[in-house]
Amino acid sequence: MRILLCNDDGIHAPGISILHQAVSGFGELRVVAPDVERSAAGHAITLADPIKSTPVEKDGVFFGDAIGGTPADCIKLAVCALMKNAPPDLILSGINLGSNTGISVLYSGTVSAATEGVILGIPGVAFSLCTYVDPQWGMAGRIVAELTEKIIQKPPPPGVLLNINLPNLSYEELKGIKVTRMGRSRFIEEFHKRLDPRGRTYYWLDGALEVHDEGDDIDIHAVRDGYVSITPIQLDLTAYDHLEYFQCLETTF
Amino acid sequence: MRILLCNDDGIHAPGISILHQAVSGFGELRVVAPDVERSAAGHAITLADPIKSTPVEKDGVFFGDAIGGTPADCIKLAVCALMKNAPPDLILSGINLGSNTGISVLYSGTVSAATEGVILGIPGVAFSLCTYVDPQWGMAGRIVAELTEKIIQKPPPPGVLLNINLPNLSYEELKGIKVTRMGRSRFIEEFHKRLDPRGRTYYWLDGALEVHDEGDDIDIHAVRDGYVSITPIQLDLTAYDHLEYFQCLETTF
Repeated sequence: MRILLCNDDGIHAPGISILHQAVSGFGELRVVAPDVERSAAGHAITLADPIKSTPVEKDGVFFGDAIGGTPADCIKLAVCALMKNAPPDLILSGINLGSNTGISVLYSGTVSAATEGVILGIPGVAFSLCTYVDPQWGMAGRIVAELTEKIIQKPPPPGVLLNINLPNLSYEELKGIKVTRMGRSRFIEEFHKRLDPRGRTYYWLDGALEVHDEGDDIDIHAVRDGYVSITPIQLDLTAYDHLEYFQCLETTF
Repeated sequence: MRILLCNDDGIHAPGISILHQAVSGFGELRVVAPDVERSAAGHAITLADPIKSTPVEKDGVFFGDAIGGTPADCIKLAVCALMKNAPPDLILSGINLGSNTGISVLYSGTVSAATEGVILGIPGVAFSLCTYVDPQWGMAGRIVAELTEKIIQKPPPPGVLLNINLPNLSYEELKGIKVTRMGRSRFIEEFHKRLDPRGRTYYWLDGALEVHDEGDDIDIHAVRDGYVSITPIQLDLTAYDHLEYFQCLETTF
């Protein structure tokens, strides 16, 4: 089995090394990840610029290819060029530092790498550890290994990826694993307005996630309550429940 | 009524001027758009860098604010800072050059601007003209005006945006307007591998959309058949039909 690893924190981030270590027993690994942090890259791809690829070593041995592009670029390049003759059977993305729950899924480069895999017909899984401080890598590696083994046995059907979020607890403190839906939420944005040394205006984005969903079955609450959250995500964005509402806009000339 | 205009081809692109002209009778317009082309930006946002805002004139009068960021950045900045005291009632994005149908919806910066509006609680509509050559701006402006009037009367419900694609025909050649779903499709990618003048490898992405959907009710086929396509798009990406499939991964510790 060939497993392609990617992330959005960049190839030098600790999370992708933990991921590499956790799943090294499951097959032949190949790392193709952004050269620098590409958090919040969404599903951006690079069309108008060339994409550079540079080999990277960790601890003196070849670790993977650093790509001058987005997570989706990495997956496209890996599947359609670098691994063209022996494409991956599974794509794992992460382990991201910071949660990718609720509306964050839309902005997430971590999720985007798994999404691109599924677009290309390869099962994809995104892993995020819900913290920026004091990450419990030991727990994360163990859960990632356990879940990857189960997912290999029961792969996601075509067109569906898995978005997995881990609470930042020790393994012993975890309550369990829950299948969840994406919680309704938004960021409450705040822009800090400043002047540069030449008197020109610029803004820094700041914000906090606000949850608009009472459900016990959502990703955000599962993590809050100490559960690993697994959300199946689909590629089809059609709002089927609203097709009828808009029928009145139909016309034939 | 206040209408915010954005796009992903950049504030200097002709499509946003056509859009501006088409809807100028419907309310007070405000343009906040990327300073340069940001096609295929997906739902990327700028977290780690400052965002610059520069006023832009067209034909000697103030046209709008050029933003050093993605389409989603533009909408966030407009709604949460520039227009904070008088937020928009409607967000229109486009008119994009090139189709945003099928899987392209995930990569589209044009759609992303409308998506960000809906995340922030403001109805959003994306318009794309399905061509790169000889655009029928006359037809496009007329259809955009007609549909915007209807949409103002029957606004999309919360959590839903409209993705509208126009075939590149004259107004007289149009067959009608259809409500559609997002067609199953993928890009068949080809990477051109080259060496830079210093002997380092780089790649250029090329590709063509491949349709995996026979449905007459999809966006891609509606446009092909001469219809304007209107697809309602939702924010919730949960694959509800597959929640049960993954129940076997649930555990309580």
